[in-house]
Amino acid sequence: MKAAIFRGPGNIAVEERPIPAIQAPGDAIVRIVRACVCGSDLWFYRGISDLPHGGVGHEFIGVVHEVGADVHHVNVGDFVISPFSFSDGTCPHCQAGFQTACLDVGFFGQGGDGDGGQAEYVRVPLADGTLYPVPHDDYSDEMLASLLTLSDVMGTGYHAAVSAGVTPGDTVAVVGDGAVGLCGVLSAKMLGASRIIAMSRHADRQALAREFGATDIVAERGEYALARIMELTDGVGVDAVLECVGTHESNETCFAIARAGAVVGRVGVPHGVEIPVESTFFRNVGMRGGPAPVRSYMDTLLPEVLSGRINPGKVFDLEIDLDRIAEGYAAMDERRSIKALIKVSEL
Amino acid sequence: MKAAIFRGPGNIAVEERPIPAIQAPGDAIVRIVRACVCGSDLWFYRGISDLPHGGVGHEFIGVVHEVGADVHHVNVGDFVISPFSFSDGTCPHCQAGFQTACLDVGFFGQGGDGDGGQAEYVRVPLADGTLYPVPHDDYSDEMLASLLTLSDVMGTGYHAAVSAGVTPGDTVAVVGDGAVGLCGVLSAKMLGASRIIAMSRHADRQALAREFGATDIVAERGEYALARIMELTDGVGVDAVLECVGTHESNETCFAIARAGAVVGRVGVPHGVEIPVESTFFRNVGMRGGPAPVRSYMDTLLPEVLSGRINPGKVFDLEIDLDRIAEGYAAMDERRSIKALIKVSEL
Repeated sequence: MKAAIFRGPGNIAVEERPIPAIQAPGDAIVRIVRACVCGSDLWFYRGISDLPHGGVGHEFIGVVHEVGADVHHVNVGDFVISPFSFSDGTCPHCQAGFQTACLDVGFFGQGGDGDGGQAEYVRVPLADGTLYPVPHDDYSDEMLASLLTLSDVMGTGYHAAVSAGVTPGDTVAVVGDGAVGLCGVLSAKMLGASRIIAMSRHADRQALAREFGATDIVAERGEYALARIMELTDGVGVDAVLECVGTHESNETCFAIARAGAVVGRVGVPHGVEIPVESTFFRNVGMRGGPAPVRSYMDTLLPEVLSGRINPGKVFDLEIDLDRIAEGYAAMDERRSIKALIKVSEL
Repeated sequence: MKAAIFRGPGNIAVEERPIPAIQAPGDAIVRIVRACVCGSDLWFYRGISDLPHGGVGHEFIGVVHEVGADVHHVNVGDFVISPFSFSDGTCPHCQAGFQTACLDVGFFGQGGDGDGGQAEYVRVPLADGTLYPVPHDDYSDEMLASLLTLSDVMGTGYHAAVSAGVTPGDTVAVVGDGAVGLCGVLSAKMLGASRIIAMSRHADRQALAREFGATDIVAERGEYALARIMELTDGVGVDAVLECVGTHESNETCFAIARAGAVVGRVGVPHGVEIPVESTFFRNVGMRGGPAPVRSYMDTLLPEVLSGRINPGKVFDLEIDLDRIAEGYAAMDERRSIKALIKVSEL
C-alpha cells in the first residue's frame, strides 16, 4: 500500500509499505477513504516537536477491511469514522466521556509502521471502543468531507466550546482561525452564542468564519486585540473564550479578554505557554480543555452533519490525492491552505 | 470606638478611634455585632503580604447605625451581613453574580481609618449593593456565629465547590483544613457529593470535617497524598477538587489528584503558585475560582443557615472580646485555633 512517511522536518514522502496486519485480537484494519493533514502535523513538520520518522496522520474515515477475533461492535464492510486516538471504551475515563484519557489510550500516526492515517490502510487497536459506524449511503464528496471532520477538527472545536461553557446568548471569542478555530465558531453558534468574535487576519478565513456564524471579526493581535475586544464589549470582556492555537501569545490574549467568571476552553496543544496565576484568580477566570474526546461528541455531531444542518467540511480548501500529500503539508505550512483533504479511495 | 489596628507583622493592638462618618451618599455606618479573624489575615500578620498599618478585618455582621442620602435598600436598625468586599450591585459583573469583580469593587480592612471589620463600627461604601438584610429575631450565639460565616468562609467554601463543578454522586477532595476548607466539605455535601475526602492532619479539624460530611481523611501531603488518593479512587483520581490553601504545594496536589475532565475550584489566594500547563492540558484538568462572590450565594445559603440545616458557625473554636483580639491572631497563627470569633456587641 501507499503511506505518507515522515522523513524529517519539511520532508513528507509517499512510500510503498505492506498493508498492516492484525496484531492483537481487538485490532481492525481499515481501508481509508478520506484522510487529511492536521494543523498539529505542522508541529513535527516544522521541527518544533519531535516525532520518529515513519507513518503519520491521525484523521480518517474508511471501510473496515479485517477484524481481530475479539472485535464485536464493528464488522468487515462497515463504514466508520475514527477519532484521532484509540481507546478501549470501557475504562472509567472512557465511561466518563474522556476517551483521550483512556487507561489504554494511544494515538495514530506516531511514526510507526501501519499506524498512520495518511495511508491506504491503517491498523486500529481497540477497534470496538474506537471506531464509530456510520450508515452506508451514497454520500457526496461534500458529505464525506464533513464526516471526516468528526475525526478531529469539528469535535475539537466543539470541545473548545463545551469546555468554555458556551451557553445561549453568550458573547464568545474564538482565538485561532485554523480549521479548529473555524469549527469552534460553528460550535459556538450551535450552542446558542448570540455574538461570536472571530480573531483572524486572513480574508478567506474571515469569510468562512462569517459563514459559520461569526458576527464580528478582529484582525488585531496582542494588546491591540485586547483593546479591540474591550471596545466591542463595553469594557466587560467576553463570556467564553475558545483557545485554538496553543502559543503563549494566544493564551495570553485568551485569559486577558475573558470577563470575570468566564472560562477559556483550550484545545490548542500548548507550546511554551505560561498560565497567568494571579490575574486569572483575582478575576475569577477559569480554564478547561485538552485533547478533545471527539468519540464522545459523535452522538451529537453526526446527526447534525448527516442532516446537513452543519457543513464543517467547508474547512477543506485543497483536495489532493495521497501521492501529492507533500503539497498539502507545504500549502498548510505556508498558510496558503486552511486544511488539505486527501482523497484516498472510493467509498 | 475600639478598633483592631495592624501595627506590623505579629503586632495587632486595639486602639481608640473616632466612629467613622458617612463620606459619600452611598455609605452606611454599621455597628458591629460579631466579627472574626480570617486565615487570609495571617498573610499580613506573618509579614508574607504587605498591608499599610491601620484598620483590619473584613468579616462582620451588625446593625445599620447611619445611612447616606442615596442609600435606599437598607435602613437604620436593619440587621445585616456584609460580604468581605463592597460592590455597587449594578455593574455588568455584579449583575452576572461576580461582585468581587465589580467595576467599583473595594475591600474592607485595607489598613485605612474606619474601613476595618474588627472594630465597633465600620464604614460600608456602596451600602445598597453590599449589605444583605437578615430578618430580626432573637438569635442564639450559635446562630449568630453561623450567620457571620456567610460574610466570607462559608460563601468561599461554597464558591470552591461550585467552581469545581461538584454534582450529585461525585467523589470530591478538599485540600486545606482551615475554616474555608471545612466549609468546602460542608458545601460539597450540600451539592450532593457522595464521597468527600478531607485532607487534614489535625485531629480536631478531622473531627469537624467528618461532622460536616467528610467520608475519608487523608493526612499525607505531597506525593504521599497523591498516592493515597489514587489508592482510594482505584487509580482514577477525584471528580472535583477544592483548593483552599493557596500555596504552590497545595495547588500541585490539587492538579495531580484530579481525574480527566475534573476542575480544581481554587479559593486559596495564590502565593508563589505555578500552574502546570501541559499535565493539566493532556489530562483535560481545568481550574476555576478566585475571590468568592459571597454576596451572590447569600440567597442560597441564608435559608440553609436560618433553618438550621447547616451550622457552619462550628468552625469557630475560640470566642473572645474585641479587647483580646491579638490572642485570636496568635492562636490561629500557631494553629491552636481554627478560627476566632470576636464578640463585639449585642444584637
